[in-house]
Amino acid sequence: MNGTITPNSLHFERHHSGIPNIDPAQHHLTIFGMVERPLTFDYNDLLRYPMQSRVLFLECSGNSYQNTAPQAADMTCGELNGLVSSAEWTGVPLHYLLDEAGVKPSASWVIAEGADASGNNRSVPLSLALQDTMIALYQNGEPLRPAHGYPIRLLVPGCEGNLSIKWLRSLKLLDQAAHTREETSKYSDLMRDGVAGQFSLKMEVKSLITSPSGKMKLPEQGIYEISGLAWSGMGAIRGVEVSADSGATWSEAELQSEAGIYRAVRFRIPWRWTGQPAVLQSRALDSNGNLQPTRSDALRGHAPGLVYHYNGIQSWLVNEQGQVRNHYA
Amino acid sequence: MNGTITPNSLHFERHHSGIPNIDPAQHHLTIFGMVERPLTFDYNDLLRYPMQSRVLFLECSGNSYQNTAPQAADMTCGELNGLVSSAEWTGVPLHYLLDEAGVKPSASWVIAEGADASGNNRSVPLSLALQDTMIALYQNGEPLRPAHGYPIRLLVPGCEGNLSIKWLRSLKLLDQAAHTREETSKYSDLMRDGVAGQFSLKMEVKSLITSPSGKMKLPEQGIYEISGLAWSGMGAIRGVEVSADSGATWSEAELQSEAGIYRAVRFRIPWRWTGQPAVLQSRALDSNGNLQPTRSDALRGHAPGLVYHYNGIQSWLVNEQGQVRNHYA
Repeated sequence: MNGTITPNSLHFERHHSGIPNIDPAQHHLTIFGMVERPLTFDYNDLLRYPMQSRVLFLECSGNSYQNTAPQAADMTCGELNGLVSSAEWTGVPLHYLLDEAGVKPSASWVIAEGADASGNNRSVPLSLALQDTMIALYQNGEPLRPAHGYPIRLLVPGCEGNLSIKWLRSLKLLDQAAHTREETSKYSDLMRDGVAGQFSLKMEVKSLITSPSGKMKLPEQGIYEISGLAWSGMGAIRGVEVSADSGATWSEAELQSEAGIYRAVRFRIPWRWTGQPAVLQSRALDSNGNLQPTRSDALRGHAPGLVYHYNGIQSWLVNEQGQVRNHYA
Repeated sequence: MNGTITPNSLHFERHHSGIPNIDPAQHHLTIFGMVERPLTFDYNDLLRYPMQSRVLFLECSGNSYQNTAPQAADMTCGELNGLVSSAEWTGVPLHYLLDEAGVKPSASWVIAEGADASGNNRSVPLSLALQDTMIALYQNGEPLRPAHGYPIRLLVPGCEGNLSIKWLRSLKLLDQAAHTREETSKYSDLMRDGVAGQFSLKMEVKSLITSPSGKMKLPEQGIYEISGLAWSGMGAIRGVEVSADSGATWSEAELQSEAGIYRAVRFRIPWRWTGQPAVLQSRALDSNGNLQPTRSDALRGHAPGLVYHYNGIQSWLVNEQGQVRNHYA
């Protein structure tokens, strides 16, 4: 893998209750609850609305969870951190549909529900739903694939992937969150003080060196390009620094593709491997001033076993044989 | 299809002598001719160079050739104009390799040759080779597919697709063009005055309405989004205008994804169909001030039968039944 776009067939998948087989001619999206006019749309209705196309990352809130364990697992970059992908999403801005339904002033949450076996659902703050959220119909030019929510998917940019409900069938306006199963048994963040945080929706600033990375082997001493990806649910990536000495010194990498809000960017920097052991790290800074934390700072405050929203610096140890493995530094 | 990125499996293909089955371990790229140091690279050598990622369109110089015929063929937008696609290409800027080989001052052309059955080749002006040209290794994140030049493809942004030689095996520096078979029997442009133009390499400014388009049918009167793509080999798209009355009046469309040099952009504008016949057109303007010509202006000067570099305005006639077909206006 190189570049920033993930082909649809390689985009990560995570399902809570299987992939339903949906006939778009039988599928409807209903907007109801605290609205002036409950509305129902079929797939062809939605195709006639104005659309937008945006390149956006999507990350599972459990991505990189293995790095919260006490020992560094010897895995590839994809095995450790592969639950993040990028695509050009095309669809209808949700505010068009909500404006048409007429959201009542007392409404403050939207409960989005999918048409999968469990009716998987999440509560989305109305402010987020009105701002950047899209009714996604296309992914990298193609209609959505079944595994990615065909025919209709909610897409909430910058937020944990499970908020972007697949096979979307209803949006219910309420004056409170639904506290669904996904918001109580899952996706709440137990802190060290015993309090569980809910609705930690935004994914924080993060970066990864994808090459060299876990289980690769450098064939010989010499110059290599260190390259990786950075993204933030808090804004656009402003810069990425790379260290080859376990964080003692840092150098600014080049951002090789356009940065943009909620968009993954590839960074690159040349590095000479002298045959000595080296620890490679990257840390990203976003447009809101958030700097990616060290592993210990990322875990501080979290209760042991919390596996969500881990964004600590990924370290790769290159040994004298040129073998690369996951490392805690 | 929607958005601007074309999935690799749907990217257009055009081959002059089949798709070779190449083992990257046995494949080499040689730079020779008027250089200080002839160099040979294998695939793994190239993977260690600094790379760049760029979203670029690629268009066959014969794209839309059916619209040069006297009668408007009743075809879909893809059948008429499908030999253009967009991808995020990742690879090594060619100037790194040419700098290393040491191009002699007297060299002015690079002859690029592929490893397919015919050794398909083209002459690239040195100025283009040094400026934007890339040794492409990845397409939308994946290694190139065999049909797109695996393992190594030349990529000359903004230029006719056949210049981007697939299965690239050599680059020869010369002080003149090679006038290869592809530059004499093909890809020269016979003009009305009997003179044949060669090396008309850049693709000119162009746009297409992709929806509604040929062979579609509007199900009922009402509001539709007119949407399409625009690109230019002369710069970035600055604006697209749309007409629903055969060019009598024009309205500025919204550019929905980022414009950029050599990058296709999607435009969108709402339109109300009243049930009357309508002729839908789009015309694009690029950052160098080039405006897409009408069909008759695009054909002016070209000898009858010239099918390359046609960029005239595409017109779609919507009849009273809502049926859409190709139309000359």
